[in-house]
Amino acid sequence: MKVLICGIDGYLGWPLALHLDKLGHEVVGMDAGWRRIWVQSVLGQSIIPIRSWKVRQDHTRFSMIHAELLHKIDSILQFYKPDAIVHLAEQPSAPFSMIDSKNAELTQHNNVIGTLAMLFAINKHCRHTHLLKIGTMGEYGTPDCVIPEAGPHEFPRQPGSFYHVSKVCDSVNIEFACRSWGLRSTDVMQGVVYGTRTDEIMEDPKNNATRFDVDECFGTVINRFCAQAVIKMPLTVYGTGQQIRGFLPLKDSIQCLTIALENPPNEGEYRVFNQFEEVYSIRSLAAIIELNARNIGLDVETQFLDNPRVEADSHKYSPRHQKLFDLGYKPTNNLRQEIEDILTDLLPHKKRIESIRLALFPKTRWRAK
Amino acid sequence: MKVLICGIDGYLGWPLALHLDKLGHEVVGMDAGWRRIWVQSVLGQSIIPIRSWKVRQDHTRFSMIHAELLHKIDSILQFYKPDAIVHLAEQPSAPFSMIDSKNAELTQHNNVIGTLAMLFAINKHCRHTHLLKIGTMGEYGTPDCVIPEAGPHEFPRQPGSFYHVSKVCDSVNIEFACRSWGLRSTDVMQGVVYGTRTDEIMEDPKNNATRFDVDECFGTVINRFCAQAVIKMPLTVYGTGQQIRGFLPLKDSIQCLTIALENPPNEGEYRVFNQFEEVYSIRSLAAIIELNARNIGLDVETQFLDNPRVEADSHKYSPRHQKLFDLGYKPTNNLRQEIEDILTDLLPHKKRIESIRLALFPKTRWRAK
Repeated sequence: MKVLICGIDGYLGWPLALHLDKLGHEVVGMDAGWRRIWVQSVLGQSIIPIRSWKVRQDHTRFSMIHAELLHKIDSILQFYKPDAIVHLAEQPSAPFSMIDSKNAELTQHNNVIGTLAMLFAINKHCRHTHLLKIGTMGEYGTPDCVIPEAGPHEFPRQPGSFYHVSKVCDSVNIEFACRSWGLRSTDVMQGVVYGTRTDEIMEDPKNNATRFDVDECFGTVINRFCAQAVIKMPLTVYGTGQQIRGFLPLKDSIQCLTIALENPPNEGEYRVFNQFEEVYSIRSLAAIIELNARNIGLDVETQFLDNPRVEADSHKYSPRHQKLFDLGYKPTNNLRQEIEDILTDLLPHKKRIESIRLALFPKTRWRAK
Repeated sequence: MKVLICGIDGYLGWPLALHLDKLGHEVVGMDAGWRRIWVQSVLGQSIIPIRSWKVRQDHTRFSMIHAELLHKIDSILQFYKPDAIVHLAEQPSAPFSMIDSKNAELTQHNNVIGTLAMLFAINKHCRHTHLLKIGTMGEYGTPDCVIPEAGPHEFPRQPGSFYHVSKVCDSVNIEFACRSWGLRSTDVMQGVVYGTRTDEIMEDPKNNATRFDVDECFGTVINRFCAQAVIKMPLTVYGTGQQIRGFLPLKDSIQCLTIALENPPNEGEYRVFNQFEEVYSIRSLAAIIELNARNIGLDVETQFLDNPRVEADSHKYSPRHQKLFDLGYKPTNNLRQEIEDILTDLLPHKKRIESIRLALFPKTRWRAK
C-alpha cells in the first residue's frame, strides 16, 4: 500500500513510518518541521534525543518531503496519489492553543485550513484515497452519558480548548466531504498516548527513537509524570485528579493506525473510531507512577495544583471503543511495564529533564486573569 | 446601548444600524468592504443601487470604521468597549465557498479565525459584552427529528457546504468561550432572509436602501426568484424543489436581532435562537412568486434543474423556534405582500438584472465533475 504520512517527524508519525515500512508498505513522509520549533518556543525539548531531519532522511528507505502541507499537498497528491494518507500534521497541544490569540489562531489555521486543503486535493487528484485523520477523544468532552463512536453529525461535541475545537472543525469538514464528494475517511478519536518504545524503535534506539516531550504543552500526562519522577519533582496533578481519560501506549496507537489502514472504509464512508485501551483517573495514574518510581529508588510525591484548565473534576466517563477491537486490535494491556520502560529510558537523560524543569510546571491558564 | 456592528455594509448590517440608531442606541459600524468585492467576483451586483461607503458615512450620525476585523478588532474593542457586538462580518454564501479550494479557505479563514480573534478581544477588553453572532439554520442540516434550539454541544450538526461548516466551527468556538471564560453570547441560527424594505429604508429609499443580491452565490432564493420573474427568466428550482427551509422577511430579521440585543444573556450564558418565521418548500415559493408575478403582468415559469448541491430532496423539517416569540417577536406574517414589494422595488431596475442574467444561473456544483 502507498501511504503518505503527513507529520512524519512527530511523536506518532515517525514510529508509524518505521512500522509501515517494515511491513512492506511504500511510505512517503511529509513535514514542515513545526513541532520541533513549537516545543522550543515553550522552552521544552525532546527528552530522548532524536535525530535531525537530515539524518532521519539519510537512514531511511522512504522519502521525506520537507514542506508546508497547506502549500504543497495539492502538488504532492497530484504526483503521488497514495492509497492512504495518515494526517498527523496538526498542532497537537491544548495548552499551546490557549496561551494567547496568536497561538489559538495559528492552531486553528494550521489544523482546520490545512485539513480543508487536503480534502480539496484528495477530491481533485485521488478520490479513492483513504484519509486516516487523527482526532482526539477530547472532542466529546465529558457528557453525562455513554459516548458512542460517532461523528459530529451524530453526537454533540464539547471540546475543552481551542485546539480541541480545531479537531471538531476538522471532523465536521471531513464528514461533509465524505457525504458530499464521496470521499472515504477514518476519523480517529484518540485517547492520550504514552510510552517510548515500539519494536522498530528498539531495533535501533539511537537512530529510531521518537521524540518524547514532557513540557506542560506538548508532554502528555503519563510521559510528564515519569519525567517528573526521574528528577524527583512532585507529579503535578491538576485539580483533584479525578478527571478520567482514555489512554493507550505508543505501540498500541501504531497497531491501531495500521489496522485502520489495512481495513479501509468504503467509498463515501465516514467512520469514527474511539482509539484507546483503558480509562484511568489522573490521580490513580499518579499513584501508579509514584509506586513504580519508588520501586527503583525514586522517592516522589504528588502535588495537587489549582486546575489551570476549565474542565469537569468529577464526571461520568464511559466511551465505547469497540470498532478497533472488532478489526483485531490486541491491547498490550501492560501499563506498569510501559511505565517501567519509560522510567528506564528516561534515567540516562535526567540532566535533559532538569534543564527544562520550569517548562514542566503549568503556566497556561484557561481562564484569563 | 453601545452597539458595534461588524459587517455594517451588508444586507442586514446596514438596515440594522439604521434601526438601532433610530431607536436611540449608540451605533458604531465596522466593515472591510469584502462583500462588494466578492459579489463582483461572481459577476453579480446589488440590483437595488446602494450608496458608496463614503456617502453612507457622510449621511449617518454613527461612525463607520473601514477595517479588517481580524487585524483591528482588538484595538477597536480596547477603545470602544461596546455593550453588544453584532457579528455579521462573515462570508455568507454557501455556493461561493464551494467554487474552489481558494474560496473555501477564504471562507473558513475569514469566518472562523475572525470570530476567534473577536472572542479573544472580548475576553481581553470587555468581558461583559454581549456577542450577538449570526449563524444559520443550515448548521443543523435536515435530520429526521425535531430540531431544538440548541448548540453543537447539545445537538449534532450536519452542515451542507464549507460555508455552513464555518458557521458550525464558529458555534463551537463561541460555546467553548462562554463555558470556559464566562463570556455571554446569542448564537442565531437564522433562516433565509428576503425582502427589500424596513421602516428606515422607506423613510429615505435612495440613501437608506440596503444591498439586494440575486446572483447564484449571494442571492437567496426568494430574492433571486423575484429578480428572475422581473426579467421573465424561468425561476430556477434546484432538484424537485421539495427541500423545506425556514424563512423570514428582512424587517423581521432586524426586529429579532433588536429583541436579542435588548434581552441579553447572562454572564457565561451561551444561548441559541432559531430565527425564522415560517417554513416553505422551494417549489411552493416558486408557485407563489409565479402567481404574484402574473398578477402584475409578468408571465414566468418554473424550471426544475439538476440540483447542483448535495442535499436531501425530500425530508422532514420541524425545527423549534420559540425563544424569540417568548421574548416578544411579532412576525409580520405577510409573505405575499413582501413579494409584491420586492417585485415593485425591482421593476425599475430590470436592466440591472438583465445585465447580470448569467450570474443568476447555478454554475457551482457541489460534486466536482
